[in-house]
This record gives sequence, C-alpha cells and structure tokens, in this order.
Amino acid sequence: MTTTDTPVSVLGLGLMGQALAAAFLRAGHPTTVWNRTAAKAGDLVADGARLAPSAGAAIAAGPLTIVCVTDYPAVRELLGASDVELSGRTVINLTSGDSAQARETAHWAEKRGARYLDGAIMAVPPAIGTADALILHSGPRADFEAHEATLAALGTVTHLGEDHGLASLYDVAGLAMMWSVLNAWLQGTAMLRTAGVDAVTYAPFARQLAMGVADWLPGYAEQVDAGSFPAEVSALETDARAMTHLIEEAEALGVNAELPRLFKVMADRAIAAGHGGEQYPVLIEEFSRPGKE
Amino acid sequence: MTTTDTPVSVLGLGLMGQALAAAFLRAGHPTTVWNRTAAKAGDLVADGARLAPSAGAAIAAGPLTIVCVTDYPAVRELLGASDVELSGRTVINLTSGDSAQARETAHWAEKRGARYLDGAIMAVPPAIGTADALILHSGPRADFEAHEATLAALGTVTHLGEDHGLASLYDVAGLAMMWSVLNAWLQGTAMLRTAGVDAVTYAPFARQLAMGVADWLPGYAEQVDAGSFPAEVSALETDARAMTHLIEEAEALGVNAELPRLFKVMADRAIAAGHGGEQYPVLIEEFSRPGKE
Repeated sequence: MTTTDTPVSVLGLGLMGQALAAAFLRAGHPTTVWNRTAAKAGDLVADGARLAPSAGAAIAAGPLTIVCVTDYPAVRELLGASDVELSGRTVINLTSGDSAQARETAHWAEKRGARYLDGAIMAVPPAIGTADALILHSGPRADFEAHEATLAALGTVTHLGEDHGLASLYDVAGLAMMWSVLNAWLQGTAMLRTAGVDAVTYAPFARQLAMGVADWLPGYAEQVDAGSFPAEVSALETDARAMTHLIEEAEALGVNAELPRLFKVMADRAIAAGHGGEQYPVLIEEFSRPGKE
Repeated sequence: MTTTDTPVSVLGLGLMGQALAAAFLRAGHPTTVWNRTAAKAGDLVADGARLAPSAGAAIAAGPLTIVCVTDYPAVRELLGASDVELSGRTVINLTSGDSAQARETAHWAEKRGARYLDGAIMAVPPAIGTADALILHSGPRADFEAHEATLAALGTVTHLGEDHGLASLYDVAGLAMMWSVLNAWLQGTAMLRTAGVDAVTYAPFARQLAMGVADWLPGYAEQVDAGSFPAEVSALETDARAMTHLIEEAEALGVNAELPRLFKVMADRAIAAGHGGEQYPVLIEEFSRPGKE
C-alpha cells in the first residue's frame, strides 16, 4: 500500500477540521469525514470525501482517525458513543486542550484499546497542507511513526515525546513566545513612532534583534539545566538598571510601560533573593513559581 | 591619509571606554585617552595609547572624540570645561542616556561649534571590536559618514537618522525585545520542566518559534502604518481565548502566570474598545498610551 492509499477519517468539520480533511484529499488519501451537523461536509464530499453516518462508522472506515472538535469533553462524548469500537484503531486528537486533559484522554482511550496520540496545531486553517503548518504530536513514538508519512499531508509534523501532555505544553509555550515577540515589537514601534519613525522602518531592526536573541537560547538553556548562572555576558543587576531606563523612557514618551514594569518586578525579585550578580537565566526560579495573582 | 591613520580620542575609561580605546588601538589608529582617574589608562598606554593631561587636550589631539562616561551630566561637565574647544571637532557620545538628553546635548554641543552624533552601544565590553557589537548612531548623516570607516573598528556601526534621539530609542526598544524573548523562553522552559523536559531540549523549539514570529514583523508593520488591521491570519479575540488557555495551564502547573496575565489584560482592553475582530497589531493603540500605573 503506497502512502497516499492510506485511508484517513476526520471527525469534526469546523474550519480547522475542514482544512485537515481537505489536505488529506489533496494528497490523495481516501478520506472519510463526520460532523455533528452533516451540512458542513458538503464541500469536502464534492471534492471526493465520503460522509460517514456516525462517528463510529467513520472510525471503522480505516486505521487512522483525526479528531478536531470544540474541546475535550466533546472528544470523550464522541469517542464514548455506543457504536464506537476503538480497539486496534489509532486516534490522533488535535483538539485544543491542556496537558492534563491530554493525559487523561490518552489513559481513557488506551483503556478502550485505542492507540492514542495527542497533538496541537500551531497554524491557522489556511496554512494547513503547507510546510508553514507546524503540527506537534506526543504519545507512543511507534504510533506516530506508523502514520508519519500520512500526517505529512497536513504540514510539518513532529513527535515531541511519549508523554501525551507534551504537545499541549509546547503549544502554549510557543504561544507565549509569539505574543512576547509581537508585544516587544509593538512596544518598540510605539516608542519609535513618537520620533516619527514608521513601523515599517523599525520592523527590520526588531526582527534582527529577535533573531539575535533567539540564538542565545540554546547556550542559556545550558545554564538552566546546570542550575548555575555565572555572569559571563552581564549581571542581572545591570539588566535591572537598563530596565529602569526603558521604563523611564516609555513614561517620558507617554507610551505604555506596563510590560517593562513587569520585567523589572520579576528581575527585582531575583535580585532581592540574592541573584543580582548572576546572569539573566537565573530568573527561571521566578518563572517556576506562582508569583503574584 | 589612510583610514587607520585617523587619530581618535576616547574620553572615559570605564570597562566600555577601555574596550573602545583598545579596539581603536588594535585597528592601528593613533589613540589619545583621558580619564578622570589617570590610573585606568595604564594598560592602554602600555599598548601605545597617549594619555592626555585633560579632556581639552584629548579633544584637541584630533578631529574625532568618543565620549563614554557615567551619564549625561558628566558629559556636559566634561565638554563644558574651560580648556575645551569644540569648534570644528566631531564628538560622538556613546554614554547611556535617554532620547531627550541626547537631543539636548546635541543642541548644546552644536551651539559650541561641535559636530555631534549621539550613539548607543548594544553590546558588552568584550564584544567591542567584533561584528557582534552593534553600535547605533544618530545625528547628521554627513558627520557619521565622514568617520564611518574609523568607527568600523568598534563593531557593526549603523546610522539611524538625523534625529539625535534615535540611537537611544532604538537601544531601549531593542532591550525590550531582548527581555521579551528571554522571558518567553523562560516561561516555556518553566512549563516544560514540569513535564521533565530539559531546558536544552526545549530551547531549539523556542528559538525556531521566535525566528518564525520575527519574520512576521515587516508584514505586520504595514498594518500599523496603514492603521488598518484586517484579521487576515487570526482575530484578536481568538488570541485572547488562547491566552486564557495559557494562563490556566501555567496556573495548573504551578508556574508563574504574570506575563500571560498582562498579555491578556492588554488584549482585553483592545477587545473592550471594539477591536476583537481585528488582527493582533491593532494593539499598537494600547501600547501607544500610558495604561495602568
């Protein structure tokens, strides 16, 4: 059986589910779809998808089922229906949820005989089927590898590890990076605009800075794993002084200063705990505990 | 006169000033130095620098003087000494300060006949003299270009524009990006560590994410300049829902959630102002006003 002959079922035909099914169809996979309201399957059926009469029938149609519905309770309801036989089937759940839900659902599905992978889609529906769509998977590696070639129709697919919670954790960690880079760029853009600098003029500088700092991360990660933070490049108290400078400049310009103020609050806590002479990654200790409500 | 024959004077021999003078010496420039306490010139003099008896004598020694002292009041005191003749001299002030101080000092120095550039060093002293040392300049372009080849001995030198405040503004904007990327990485690292994932394992993912988002900035900047934020990729209210998910996951894991909570506060303000259906860069309006103390 060549790769594109592998049948795939897709449960849930919201915007994302439709994009997933369409990508499988484009790659030539026999694709079965199901949705609570069958009308959403119209375009896909016109493009060659088979509409199953029930979730159970869709799951029975082939070895691999992708689930992409509203939330985890909906996943359980769907997979728990009386006509569903999970034994021997592989279920990849791309529904958004947290790591605890992923682990619980994995346990639940495996008890019913399913091979279960949990996944997270780091892409918007229009990107599905292109290399820009990053799709994360976690759970048994062998189950991922058995279907990796099929999943590749969806985008850039990766396996993070055996712990079913990992896809969700990497997903939200990635979102934190996304908003952080965007907010830092907006902070700088707001400041530069007070001097008449266009956003388009500033953006390449911000882009270059973000990339430069991104390159430090693997080296800084070694300090975190070693639990040792010698100030090879600069000391946290030097950063804190520069943070004050940023805050004062933002305030003087009349732009928002909440983000730099929070940076300083966290740095000051680490300094108060005696880490002022250590390097920035020592803040891992602040990020690893709850902090202020 | 070849480039490396250009004499240069350096005022202020803290760690950074010493690194600047040493880089000029290594590049072969006749280098005159001065510091309030002459003892700090010892190593540089051993390497061939000439020690001037006063700031005025150092400035008189050549066409180009670099100033790198504690703060702007110190700059004024230094350049305002009775034996200092600024007329016809070029002064490049690399002292840390804010954009208002840069503009005021430019005005003050130009009234005394100096050609004045304000600069900011985005590097630590050991990086000076390497391409990794980014040194920003603002002020009259012709004055920068007249000395660009000499300044290149210090690192990667750029001219941002005629407004003397720009170097300082780009500097603090760049710092905001630096801490943002580092904090986002620490946030993700803290979350992943709860699942036993090493910082070194997570870092390449964080690096790739930061670089991916950095690539969006030039396009997003066009929305800011146009003042129009159609949700081509996703709507702000979708981001806000995912922020809630990030906050809840961080709280459930027992790690810090202050940063994502601030992201959500700012997004919610824009949504309350009616921008929920627009794209993330619409937050420029929030970043452009003071917000909460």
